[in-house]
Amino acid sequence: QMPRGNLETVNHRALVLAQLRKWLDSLRFKEAFDCMRKLRINLNLIYDHNPKVFLETIIAFITQLNSINHINLFLTELKEENTTSTMYPPPEGSPVQPQPASGMKKVDIVCDALRSAMESMDPNKFCLSILTTHVKKTVPELEIALQKVHELRVNPPEAPGAVSAEEALKYLLFLVNVNDLYEHSLGTYDFDLVLMVAEKSQKDPKEYLPFLNMLKSLEPNYQRYTIDKHLKRYRKALLHLSKCGQEHFPEALQLVKEQKLYNEALRLYAADKAQYKALSCAYAEHLMEQQQAEQAGLLLWRCGEPASALQAFASSSSWRNAICVAQQLPLPPDQLALLARDLAEKLIEQRRYSEAALLLDQYAKDCEEAILALINGAVWEEALRLIYMHNRQDITETNLKPALLDAFGAQTVFLEAQVAAFIRHKTRLALVREQKEKARLNMLDEDGPDCPDAELYSEASSVMTGSKYSHSNSRISSRSSKNRRKAERKKLSLKEGSPMEDRALMYALSEIITTVDKMREEVHNLLKALVLFQFDRQAEKLQLVYEEALQMMEAAVPEVWPEGLQNNQAPLTGPNSTANSIMASFQQQQQQQQQKPVTSQQDAEIPPPPKMRNGVKWKLIVLK
Amino acid sequence: QMPRGNLETVNHRALVLAQLRKWLDSLRFKEAFDCMRKLRINLNLIYDHNPKVFLETIIAFITQLNSINHINLFLTELKEENTTSTMYPPPEGSPVQPQPASGMKKVDIVCDALRSAMESMDPNKFCLSILTTHVKKTVPELEIALQKVHELRVNPPEAPGAVSAEEALKYLLFLVNVNDLYEHSLGTYDFDLVLMVAEKSQKDPKEYLPFLNMLKSLEPNYQRYTIDKHLKRYRKALLHLSKCGQEHFPEALQLVKEQKLYNEALRLYAADKAQYKALSCAYAEHLMEQQQAEQAGLLLWRCGEPASALQAFASSSSWRNAICVAQQLPLPPDQLALLARDLAEKLIEQRRYSEAALLLDQYAKDCEEAILALINGAVWEEALRLIYMHNRQDITETNLKPALLDAFGAQTVFLEAQVAAFIRHKTRLALVREQKEKARLNMLDEDGPDCPDAELYSEASSVMTGSKYSHSNSRISSRSSKNRRKAERKKLSLKEGSPMEDRALMYALSEIITTVDKMREEVHNLLKALVLFQFDRQAEKLQLVYEEALQMMEAAVPEVWPEGLQNNQAPLTGPNSTANSIMASFQQQQQQQQQKPVTSQQDAEIPPPPKMRNGVKWKLIVLK
Repeated sequence: QMPRGNLETVNHRALVLAQLRKWLDSLRFKEAFDCMRKLRINLNLIYDHNPKVFLETIIAFITQLNSINHINLFLTELKEENTTSTMYPPPEGSPVQPQPASGMKKVDIVCDALRSAMESMDPNKFCLSILTTHVKKTVPELEIALQKVHELRVNPPEAPGAVSAEEALKYLLFLVNVNDLYEHSLGTYDFDLVLMVAEKSQKDPKEYLPFLNMLKSLEPNYQRYTIDKHLKRYRKALLHLSKCGQEHFPEALQLVKEQKLYNEALRLYAADKAQYKALSCAYAEHLMEQQQAEQAGLLLWRCGEPASALQAFASSSSWRNAICVAQQLPLPPDQLALLARDLAEKLIEQRRYSEAALLLDQYAKDCEEAILALINGAVWEEALRLIYMHNRQDITETNLKPALLDAFGAQTVFLEAQVAAFIRHKTRLALVREQKEKARLNMLDEDGPDCPDAELYSEASSVMTGSKYSHSNSRISSRSSKNRRKAERKKLSLKEGSPMEDRALMYALSEIITTVDKMREEVHNLLKALVLFQFDRQAEKLQLVYEEALQMMEAAVPEVWPEGLQNNQAPLTGPNSTANSIMASFQQQQQQQQQKPVTSQQDAEIPPPPKMRNGVKWKLIVLK
Repeated sequence: QMPRGNLETVNHRALVLAQLRKWLDSLRFKEAFDCMRKLRINLNLIYDHNPKVFLETIIAFITQLNSINHINLFLTELKEENTTSTMYPPPEGSPVQPQPASGMKKVDIVCDALRSAMESMDPNKFCLSILTTHVKKTVPELEIALQKVHELRVNPPEAPGAVSAEEALKYLLFLVNVNDLYEHSLGTYDFDLVLMVAEKSQKDPKEYLPFLNMLKSLEPNYQRYTIDKHLKRYRKALLHLSKCGQEHFPEALQLVKEQKLYNEALRLYAADKAQYKALSCAYAEHLMEQQQAEQAGLLLWRCGEPASALQAFASSSSWRNAICVAQQLPLPPDQLALLARDLAEKLIEQRRYSEAALLLDQYAKDCEEAILALINGAVWEEALRLIYMHNRQDITETNLKPALLDAFGAQTVFLEAQVAAFIRHKTRLALVREQKEKARLNMLDEDGPDCPDAELYSEASSVMTGSKYSHSNSRISSRSSKNRRKAERKKLSLKEGSPMEDRALMYALSEIITTVDKMREEVHNLLKALVLFQFDRQAEKLQLVYEEALQMMEAAVPEVWPEGLQNNQAPLTGPNSTANSIMASFQQQQQQQQQKPVTSQQDAEIPPPPKMRNGVKWKLIVLK
């Protein structure tokens, strides 16, 4: 049982809130405010109760409170939290007050609105509250507040009872940490203001005066740079330093490197200046470390450092750029040939045979190597082009034809292995599905109509889908569910009897289809080359093997990915259903319905049926 | 009211069938057969009742019937139809007899099994039944039957009561149309047999004797060719004609052309023979007509007709082969250059700029045109390579740089237009969906719990999904539904208020995403080129515009394709549901359940969310 006093408070508060809402609805802010203050009700409610009305009647609010202290109290209590959805939910059935959807934060909206109203009413009178609106913003506007204090000092207002600069500063120091205020006063580059704050603070003049004097002695841009750097505002520091002339450039370069301000720095110097080149080189060095050698090369090349650019391009296999730079240098022919060979070697490692052949042919002037690279990469037509271009038909007999026969053999063996694996997985999948369906039906039979226990159904459906997530009902964010899905896929195992074997088999089948389907172009080109050299028998065999593989896989798709796979419950009704079976089936669907978020995540883990590119024609009609 | 006699027959038949099943189960074939014959019950039931048992006890069947006539009667009554699923369904609850799943036809299975049994028992005795098994096969084996008759004539069996050739032939003529039999006898190339059939037929010897005599006078291969051609067996005809020597080749070529037997013909002649070349040329001509010029070119080239091959390759933009053949001829340099220009022009029309540039550069020896083609095709790096290779840096200033700026402008404008269209479609989609959901909820409210009329629900769900197929319940074959889906998509209209506007919008959104996502490589290459030439401002703008476009589209995917889109019914139960609302919702789901085939077809028409290739890195870190 609750302690008696507590209960009374609760009841009391409900009544109070009802009264407050009435007052706020009738714009009686003063009554509301006084009552809230007395009963320690969070003042945010004044705004949260009806943001739109509050903003429209803000002058009434200020006029009724008619107290700097009260306005300041309201301002300092402002929080992002919407008290009508946390502490003080409105009574059932009352209309929901829409929050203004400007994308701005509530605290900033209220501060800006109040300040604008007070400035229009009487900036002198509301001076301290206006300062509060600057300080309370989510990113406090300390410089602006300080600027206003400075203004008071320079032009003391004549109005009676106006706040003096002294008082204002004292108030600011009460709101804000003195060191923060001192730093921000430095950031205005206004030494009068800095001194004013320093004096009001408890700081030792022996500490800050030498520093300020040193700053005062500096050239204005360098002075600002020094202050910015002191305040860790490095972008501003760089901007000011860049205006300090050439003798300070080493310092700027150092700053750029330390703070990685390369992009900003390049914008501050003209492209034809020595500094621009020095910055480009430094940036390039950094980019090389970041494995961005090609971009480094571009910067080096354009700033007139072709030798370094060549290094960068070569190391990133950006071979066209490398060759261009080499010819611009120019590299002597023997070194150009060496470069071309180096680049070609790397490209061959990356299976980029055509590009490698171009380098070998046109820059290393070694057509034989070029042709062999193309044959090696099964780029038959291009190999033949170079053979005829360089009149090297001998290579047709020594290399091209044997390679064609090898390729025929390799492709045939590969396809037969893929087909065998496909059939094995497909047969196994049918078996696994049959077993799961049996298990599911057994479940239904045993625990069916007479057992309304949700736990049991949940168990059953978890066996069905093989997931360990069926019990969790929480909606997981798309991001984390994506990661989980990825992790989950890793867990899939083709081992017989593994919990998600069916899905693992579907992935394996999907991958085989994709792999085989991708071979259309390669097979087409090989077939043409085989026909050209009169290897009709081999071409016919390959065409047959490939066609059978594609047809078999295409025919298997509806079986592996049946329509309505996501939705594999037994039909609710039918000629053989009884009242009980319908009810059981219905209850089960209800379960699935409730687990919907989970179910749809599981569905997403079922690989979609692969698309076959039947539009890519690969068959030769001259072969049967 | 049914006529009285009819009713009696029905009752009677049920009793008879029960008796027959008992007899067949106890292998009392004789009783079953006699009874069925008397009461005109289809004899197929003997097999259909239990195919497995029948095939295993076929000897007992033959022995019990012990009558050639009865066996023949059984054979001639054989049909593909399974009488247990059409005329004589088994009584409820009896086990279903599996059909042997060999892929062979029932008639063929029974014929082969019976023949094999009879041949092992007494081929002479069962001679006429054996002939019947050949004739009754789905593809009648008339030649084999005729061969067996011929055998009887050559070696008359000595067994008492054995059938004579005369009798056998008479029987065959009773089973088969005489002209068919005559033609098939010709097909055995056995003139004795032909004469035997002809004599037994009503044919006029004046008709067939001159033809047979003419045939007899021919050289054996030409004779067979003539017969095959007469019987329209063109493949066999070609095979025999090909053995008749060179002087008959024109006739063979004519046959090949008429019957389009090119592939078969090429296999019959050696590749180094003149006939092979003539056939290849004829085939090539045919292939050209079939728009298969490249394959025509391959045949022409390999048979030693390079000039024609060149025509074929050139006309199919098979430019590598064309150039090879041209160099083999060899074409004089000026004509080679002309050829290269022609080919390049066609390739440019097909937006194959890199290939066109290769032709212009290496064969037309016009590096300027080559570079312009590459610039035109936005193949920036390759353009630069040729510029440096040919030392034509002037083109960088005159063409490359202006083209880069043009490309920047065009891409930016294009992206902005895509983004605008995307936002427009997305906003409209949200509105359309909201309206549909409202319409659906209204439907539920109005017609909910108390209205079990299926028509109304069907109407409602048809409004929901906007399909005109909701009333059709038939399962449409995958093929025809594919075609329908295609036709359906054409009907989708983006016009406001069109019935499937939501789906049309999803297609449009999907297409925009795919288009924009495809630009990754192109934008990346353009950005690099812009940076190289110091167009940093443009590069930054393009990078920003493209990144914002991609991010906006990626963020919109979950909204346009929400999880569980296929499944948009309201939850069955919940805190606010009543017994009535649950029941209404349940009934609605039942409706949907029954319409499942239709629903899933509709689902298939919802375009799947497009995959974005986030793995393709396109951004430059040197830009911001």
